[in-house]
Amino acid sequence: MTAQFERVALIGLGLIGSSLSRVMQREGLAKHISGYARSAATRARAIEIGLVDSIHETAADAVKNADLVILCSPVGSYGAIAQEIGPALKPGAIVTDVGSVKGAVVRDVGPFMPDGVHFIPGHPIAGTEQSGPDSGFAELFANRWCILTPPPGSDPQAVAKLEAFWEACGSHVDVMTPEHHDLVLAITSHLPHLIAYNIVSTAADLEEVTNSEVIKYSAGGFRDFTRIAASDPTMWRDVFLNNKDAVLEMLGRFSEDLSALQRAIRWGDGDALFSLFSRSREIRRGIIAAGQDTASPDFGRGARKS
Amino acid sequence: MTAQFERVALIGLGLIGSSLSRVMQREGLAKHISGYARSAATRARAIEIGLVDSIHETAADAVKNADLVILCSPVGSYGAIAQEIGPALKPGAIVTDVGSVKGAVVRDVGPFMPDGVHFIPGHPIAGTEQSGPDSGFAELFANRWCILTPPPGSDPQAVAKLEAFWEACGSHVDVMTPEHHDLVLAITSHLPHLIAYNIVSTAADLEEVTNSEVIKYSAGGFRDFTRIAASDPTMWRDVFLNNKDAVLEMLGRFSEDLSALQRAIRWGDGDALFSLFSRSREIRRGIIAAGQDTASPDFGRGARKS
Repeated sequence: MTAQFERVALIGLGLIGSSLSRVMQREGLAKHISGYARSAATRARAIEIGLVDSIHETAADAVKNADLVILCSPVGSYGAIAQEIGPALKPGAIVTDVGSVKGAVVRDVGPFMPDGVHFIPGHPIAGTEQSGPDSGFAELFANRWCILTPPPGSDPQAVAKLEAFWEACGSHVDVMTPEHHDLVLAITSHLPHLIAYNIVSTAADLEEVTNSEVIKYSAGGFRDFTRIAASDPTMWRDVFLNNKDAVLEMLGRFSEDLSALQRAIRWGDGDALFSLFSRSREIRRGIIAAGQDTASPDFGRGARKS
Repeated sequence: MTAQFERVALIGLGLIGSSLSRVMQREGLAKHISGYARSAATRARAIEIGLVDSIHETAADAVKNADLVILCSPVGSYGAIAQEIGPALKPGAIVTDVGSVKGAVVRDVGPFMPDGVHFIPGHPIAGTEQSGPDSGFAELFANRWCILTPPPGSDPQAVAKLEAFWEACGSHVDVMTPEHHDLVLAITSHLPHLIAYNIVSTAADLEEVTNSEVIKYSAGGFRDFTRIAASDPTMWRDVFLNNKDAVLEMLGRFSEDLSALQRAIRWGDGDALFSLFSRSREIRRGIIAAGQDTASPDFGRGARKS
């Protein structure tokens, strides 16, 4: 199955869109990359830095004759975009996306997809805290997982072609239902971001500790939360609005567990603390063994050159 | 003020003790480094890899004739160690520590310090998720802050000498009260660790999402929490047992703020989410400007070689 397409349309040219452009260029996955971005500044920049072969004023223009259309804008924008591009899609085209939620994408985009177009939602589990057209790099997807959630009855050839595309981008591909995706991501991505945003906000509001102190002494652990909490606010607003049930479920469990920890601290139950703190190392080892992080120490980064 | 000491005793040879040894060796800060570690394996390893000039079976032996004694073991062990080394300390010696709490250290160690010994608690805000004698590196303290909490009436010369020592290790030095230290660190370090441990535990307990899925898809944010939650369980148990009030205070605020976020998600209040998510970038910029982290994207680390 070839991973190459004649014409690929990128709708949205932020971190993921620009990274996809870079890896497609490096691997020769598209003969022509057309692009659309909502802001004129991003459209101008995309041409300037050679992200796309053609830039368009509307999403409908950008998808004309495209064999593969990838929605890379915040998920809250998908419904309107789908409605706009639906009539302009080429018969036989594959339409996919990179959104962090999948149930809502099926709900918002599905109804606008014409017969003969293959709609296969997707989500590459990769990112950085950066955003915008300059933040992309070809290696972003290397050794990361991409989850596809093809609707029942999807054309196996179209799914295989999209799988081959992501593999050519360096990713491993998994297939699951949108519902399971949203549950898994609620715990591995959405809740971590929510908590990171929350602690940064709690810290900023303190009266007894100044922001300048929080900044100076952030190397004790807080710093890593600010990195996650520096992610794009629009993207994350849309994630929480569109994966409400799963996030609230995970948040409920997290808060319950945190109350138990709080109680152990209040009552000085050192054994409970030690045993809970010890189990995390197991999961950490699994992540390193699975190639999703390295064992090299990170708190000292910036200080240690090697 | 010279930063050099004739004889420095390291009580505890884990991440911080071994890093102190490495930087003292590099900068020539001690003519002789004596060491003590509770486990025989660590003592043997310390000699094998050249961490210390002499290793001792007891802490009291290790501190004999030392001009500077640095407690680098978990803070829960300080009281017993102080009681043991008190009578063996050289008159005029400086005794300090690297513990993550300071009020409890004053409480536990202070009473055992003989007259004529300068007891000046300290805390370098630096670390990694690694532990043990092999985890140390000389650059750990570079451009990090070290907080000293000298008791009222401390000898200014002894304080200046300890400041010069930490500066020679590459650190900036701040002086504050133990109470303020414990409040600042509760938010910048203790609460982040508690939350990281908690979410890893919540994830491990899920029935609907397997541990193998959590591991595979951890690049979405969860991964960074597991790094923090891989820190030494004994050290962190002792931190929470010994900074109970400040941690419970910060935890109460965090939970309150999290409930407000939960409510915004439940009621679909996108504006509230967006505005909260936007403020974090301010603090993040401050941390980068203060040299406590770099702006280079981190989620993709391991994938991106540069």
